[in-house]
Amino acid sequence: MARDGLPTLRIAVVGTGLIGGSVLRRLAQTEHEVVGWDLDPGTRTTGTDLGLAFADRLDDALAGRDVVFLCGPLSSLPTGLAEVVAAAPKHCVITDVGSTKMAVAVAAERAGLAGRFVGGHPMAGSERAGLAAATPDLYVGAPWVLTPLGVPGLPAFRLLARLVLESFDARVVPLDATVHDDIVALASHIPHILAGALATATDRSDVRAAVLSLAAGSFSDGTRVAGTPSARTTDMLINNRAAIARRIGLVRSALDDLVDAVVAGDAERLLSCLSEGRHARLDLLARHTEPASRTFTAGESYNEELTYLLELGASGGCVTGCQIDGDRVTYAVLKPATP
Amino acid sequence: MARDGLPTLRIAVVGTGLIGGSVLRRLAQTEHEVVGWDLDPGTRTTGTDLGLAFADRLDDALAGRDVVFLCGPLSSLPTGLAEVVAAAPKHCVITDVGSTKMAVAVAAERAGLAGRFVGGHPMAGSERAGLAAATPDLYVGAPWVLTPLGVPGLPAFRLLARLVLESFDARVVPLDATVHDDIVALASHIPHILAGALATATDRSDVRAAVLSLAAGSFSDGTRVAGTPSARTTDMLINNRAAIARRIGLVRSALDDLVDAVVAGDAERLLSCLSEGRHARLDLLARHTEPASRTFTAGESYNEELTYLLELGASGGCVTGCQIDGDRVTYAVLKPATP
Repeated sequence: MARDGLPTLRIAVVGTGLIGGSVLRRLAQTEHEVVGWDLDPGTRTTGTDLGLAFADRLDDALAGRDVVFLCGPLSSLPTGLAEVVAAAPKHCVITDVGSTKMAVAVAAERAGLAGRFVGGHPMAGSERAGLAAATPDLYVGAPWVLTPLGVPGLPAFRLLARLVLESFDARVVPLDATVHDDIVALASHIPHILAGALATATDRSDVRAAVLSLAAGSFSDGTRVAGTPSARTTDMLINNRAAIARRIGLVRSALDDLVDAVVAGDAERLLSCLSEGRHARLDLLARHTEPASRTFTAGESYNEELTYLLELGASGGCVTGCQIDGDRVTYAVLKPATP
Repeated sequence: MARDGLPTLRIAVVGTGLIGGSVLRRLAQTEHEVVGWDLDPGTRTTGTDLGLAFADRLDDALAGRDVVFLCGPLSSLPTGLAEVVAAAPKHCVITDVGSTKMAVAVAAERAGLAGRFVGGHPMAGSERAGLAAATPDLYVGAPWVLTPLGVPGLPAFRLLARLVLESFDARVVPLDATVHDDIVALASHIPHILAGALATATDRSDVRAAVLSLAAGSFSDGTRVAGTPSARTTDMLINNRAAIARRIGLVRSALDDLVDAVVAGDAERLLSCLSEGRHARLDLLARHTEPASRTFTAGESYNEELTYLLELGASGGCVTGCQIDGDRVTYAVLKPATP
């Protein structure tokens, strides 16, 4: 029995690179029984050498599991999901850790898995790759998005929310899959594109060596994620191209405003535009939230609970606790507050 | 006598915010005799409270000084330079720490100061501001650009190079002022514009709170310098608008390439473009340099020394040591090398 009453679970982590490996290493420190599997035999050996439980065959990893974390490359998730469903027990709850959520949600709904599959996206990472770079503390304090597929997904959502909160010390952000993809276009994908643009322009420039020699913090921070393995970034960006296309105009328009003001020497307009951005940046550093809680009883509809959760996430809030007591569920949450 | 034979100098630091304050705090740890001055009486009090020597009047700060660091806001430098020249001894060498070098170089040449003024730009900073944020170690290991105004500036360059190397543990990058401004457009100013564009677009977006809630490392790093006081960034960008205008096209073109490939779902083209950028990023993390040295004797022309230094800096190299032995000067340098 884990703290707050979550039973000990039998968990499998399928795909153990940086992200899945960090999930596995964290769970290995808890009272849950966890096993890893990776397509690459070398990774399985590395894992065993690190003292982690690894299965040699996917079937063996999945047998008798209560929860499966599907952590392969983004484009492999729909196929991987079908493989897991074929081999895992019928009661098994499945989640993933992919950085876009629509494609896998569509695949899960088509396969009739709305009651068993809840998409996930732990919002932390690194420009490094592989199990050797994995660390059990990667997700501590980070937002972890969960995207239930409607009302049928609520029981699985509750289970995963408790697991994420209790075992990872992360914050759960409930979101509709489409809304998630729209938000991360700005919160993650376009930042990768901007970093790539700066690094690529430098690579192509006739002052490349001198720029690298003089690069201060602004350049170094602004290109950090350009060091991410390019195939991984490509996979992520292509998978979310619709949302990126919807949101890139906003960033290009702000860029135009800034560049136009600079080139025109219009200090007043430039200051105004930079101040808007500084406002958002300072709010990021000191986010103002206030705690609240909400209990749902058997008398209330699941629809009400789902709506509450999705609106909470979309408005910038998160779940910090989930207690189940008979037919009552109580969510402790943080809501954005005006300072 | 300092190490490597630099005599003990009487130094004034005029303007003691983040940058000047860090210069002052560092020099206060050396054997040089240093005094600070700031236009703001509150800053002078803060400095005195921190145990730093401060003068109440600019004249007092400048009397009998061998070297002056002019560290006020960028746009104030030409005026500040005239004030310093009026009050400092005739032999006094003057440098500044501004992030663009053309405007102050033009002002110095017009004032006939080519033999006494060498522009400077220590390439480290912080999004914070003020003397309280200043730290003596800010420049350790950082590139510190020095821009001699032709052959007449060489003796002053040598003095400042030794001071920067010995007292700040920085690397000296000799550059022509125009070349400097062109390089920092890419190495610092355009990164500030990109960070501003991302932060401003977020501030304007209808999913602002959710984006800030989900922001992972890529967003946080990509907006860090958007937290810089906006007036300081405005001053810096406006002062270098010509070079920014010359270089922004390269970044926009790379951005277009990336966005076009994403929107078209062209994974192959996207991977190729991201890989170019990753190449530059990885070179930034593991710059390959090789040590060399060069001695100039009285028989060689100053022109030759100047050309050597400026080519070294423009090619991505730097000076790591400067020894003067009678009429010989020996530079220890690092040159970019192919891995």
